[in-house]
Amino acid sequence: MFYRSLLLPDLRESLESNDRASLHEFCEALHAAVLAEILDELTGEEIWQVLSATGPERQAEIFSFLDKARQVSLVPVVPHRDLSRLIEEMPADERVDFLEQLDDDEVERILPLIAQAERADIRKLLSYPEGSAGSIMTTEYAWLPENITVDEAFGRLHEQAPDSETIYYIYIVDDGRRLDGMVTLRQLIQSRRSAKLADVMRHDVISVRVDDDVEHVAAEVARYDFLAIPVVDNQNRLVGIVTHDDAIDIFRKEAEEDALMQAGVVPLEDDYLATPVAVLVRKRVVWLAFLMVAAFVTARILEGYQQVAGVLTWMGWFQPLVLASGGNAGSQSATLIIRELALNESRQAHRMMLFWREVRVAALQGLLMMIIAFAGSIMLVDLQSAVVVCITVFLVVLMGTSTGAALPMLFSKLGMDPALMSNPLIAALSDTLGVIIYFTVAITLIGVAVPAV
Amino acid sequence: MFYRSLLLPDLRESLESNDRASLHEFCEALHAAVLAEILDELTGEEIWQVLSATGPERQAEIFSFLDKARQVSLVPVVPHRDLSRLIEEMPADERVDFLEQLDDDEVERILPLIAQAERADIRKLLSYPEGSAGSIMTTEYAWLPENITVDEAFGRLHEQAPDSETIYYIYIVDDGRRLDGMVTLRQLIQSRRSAKLADVMRHDVISVRVDDDVEHVAAEVARYDFLAIPVVDNQNRLVGIVTHDDAIDIFRKEAEEDALMQAGVVPLEDDYLATPVAVLVRKRVVWLAFLMVAAFVTARILEGYQQVAGVLTWMGWFQPLVLASGGNAGSQSATLIIRELALNESRQAHRMMLFWREVRVAALQGLLMMIIAFAGSIMLVDLQSAVVVCITVFLVVLMGTSTGAALPMLFSKLGMDPALMSNPLIAALSDTLGVIIYFTVAITLIGVAVPAV
Repeated sequence: MFYRSLLLPDLRESLESNDRASLHEFCEALHAAVLAEILDELTGEEIWQVLSATGPERQAEIFSFLDKARQVSLVPVVPHRDLSRLIEEMPADERVDFLEQLDDDEVERILPLIAQAERADIRKLLSYPEGSAGSIMTTEYAWLPENITVDEAFGRLHEQAPDSETIYYIYIVDDGRRLDGMVTLRQLIQSRRSAKLADVMRHDVISVRVDDDVEHVAAEVARYDFLAIPVVDNQNRLVGIVTHDDAIDIFRKEAEEDALMQAGVVPLEDDYLATPVAVLVRKRVVWLAFLMVAAFVTARILEGYQQVAGVLTWMGWFQPLVLASGGNAGSQSATLIIRELALNESRQAHRMMLFWREVRVAALQGLLMMIIAFAGSIMLVDLQSAVVVCITVFLVVLMGTSTGAALPMLFSKLGMDPALMSNPLIAALSDTLGVIIYFTVAITLIGVAVPAV
Repeated sequence: MFYRSLLLPDLRESLESNDRASLHEFCEALHAAVLAEILDELTGEEIWQVLSATGPERQAEIFSFLDKARQVSLVPVVPHRDLSRLIEEMPADERVDFLEQLDDDEVERILPLIAQAERADIRKLLSYPEGSAGSIMTTEYAWLPENITVDEAFGRLHEQAPDSETIYYIYIVDDGRRLDGMVTLRQLIQSRRSAKLADVMRHDVISVRVDDDVEHVAAEVARYDFLAIPVVDNQNRLVGIVTHDDAIDIFRKEAEEDALMQAGVVPLEDDYLATPVAVLVRKRVVWLAFLMVAAFVTARILEGYQQVAGVLTWMGWFQPLVLASGGNAGSQSATLIIRELALNESRQAHRMMLFWREVRVAALQGLLMMIIAFAGSIMLVDLQSAVVVCITVFLVVLMGTSTGAALPMLFSKLGMDPALMSNPLIAALSDTLGVIIYFTVAITLIGVAVPAV
């Protein structure tokens, strides 16, 4: 945040005058993660103008920290030959994640330009099913045979270091590449230089299988406080490692998916802001529609009691339905907005954009729900009453969504934790406003004297 | 899981015959995290019988992997002198987390037995406020001055290794202990032995402040894919480090708190199972009561429309209130149970116990909510009607909680993801059952012909 406002004006100046020397200096100056955040403010063409001022190795480092949507948007901008050099330099797991975002055609255009060895590795990693250890592991691990000395090990690690994701855990493999044990670099530092690895290594290595679920992999890394966990195939051959930073990413993604599922939203594949409004509606309206069907069951049961006890009019039958529609839409919206605010420090413009997206989602969802509500209620009541129910549903969904989006933003603006705006609280507020909407619509359309039964 | 069932019978045998040799062997055989899980099946006395067969260093390793409640329960069992030796050997951050669980009196009894240097360190760490970087950092980091060679650095690291949480990131400090830069062990391995650290190190080190929020610290570790991040005081003096495994713990805790908050449960301090039923009720009934007050506002508004439009009887006014009570109680229960099932692979006995806990919570919550419901409704309606409302609230809370607890367990038993049982779905089911309960109570207590106002 701080760096961005400080460096962006200078960077724009260097871009305008196309000052290669100062662009090069910029690329070397800061941590790649910080540079990627600053670059995020630029157009694709500008990003490449900056990156092309440095070598492919540093390009790959910075590129790896850009978010996925941004990486993909650079593909048409970067010349194919430069792109393939950059991809060669990326960590094995990061580049596969990137290539998975592209169309198959595009991948086939880029792959032939990549060096043979790297290409085989990419094809292998691309072949593991999504959600498996294989799909997130890297093949760039440090390994040694057991029959060398600690001193020889240091020599070999010196060579392996540039191409390994980590050299702090070193895996000991036999001639058939089967995982036999491991040593940590710390153990090597603490050992006599003349000791054999066979005497220093530990044999009972905890590993995961290449087809294990990523969530299991992350849980194992966390359970043992590992820096990395080895991934083996069904013959115990070492095929890759998964590192601690991947485990953090898995936990964060899992928590986000759980939160969305709990609020009745089908988990999103992309960032909230990168997801088109139509997709957002699809991921949400499935649940809302399903829940409305359940609410019709409730309405039908209430109608049954009406005949027995004469205590409720048709407006009473549909009251749970209209209130639940508002509450459910509100919970979905609040959950999405709370997570979005947690991920991105909110600026005023950002908040306005979020709110505007939610209003559009609400309008679309409201229309769809209105159609379902009309179709359901016309089977239980007359046309006039069904019109009251479906117009109310539209307005209540609109109100629920806006409330669900606006209140966490208000909390965040007031410096409070937006997560305090819990789903039951949104539902309670939406109940109160919902009955007002319901009766206002009924009185407006049918008049004051609605017959009591 | 697998280890547990395999090793536990052997271990029990060794315990009965008090076979010190085989108990010692057990302590050395497996990863400390696995041993801690197996020990979790034993009583406190048995755990100490096992641990006392090995040295304090290994004791501390295994002890650190026991969960907090278990650690505390061992305090009365372990002789004070052994306990203080064990504490001396624990990682600096782990032992402070442990001591924070104890009463101040107990801490004051143990501390004098601990070596002077360690004791000062503990007092310092205990003084940082909860939730700050200082409260989770460890003081056991590797550090070097900048004016030595890479070769000398290896010599010094060899000495520092046993007492450092990690030697993979090495911080460069000046005479005043101010943070000047860092080198990674990987960089040292890749450098010439004769190079000066001053030429290898990087100067722009990203650090956090000792009073920074732990969530900010974890986010920085994740953002830069760090193994550890240095913690400095307000004069840029290095006071500790926070490592990658701490960042994972923070993310998991944060995700759990968010999930509970979203469902209207005040976050728990301990594990679900370690939390007494009375505390569970307290953490949940706060929100339920607050939401019921909101529901009374809705009831009051409905009463107002009644006078205008004559469409609802008193039963209609309270319908949103009784349905919301069931839905809210159900969401709380479902959220807690889903998280509990995610953390602990479920066995039949475990599931039964969870369900039974929830039923007890439900009964207590139902009673409290019933009192509030009576007090509120008697202000709006006659005694007979108020009795219907409050008995319904009791039954609906009981039903909502049981449904919320039972359905995720059913899903888990059927091999489906319990998180699919979303809160809106629980609320929809609870609405349907809720109206049946409401009218059954009314018909039973007041009779069939409730006057339609």
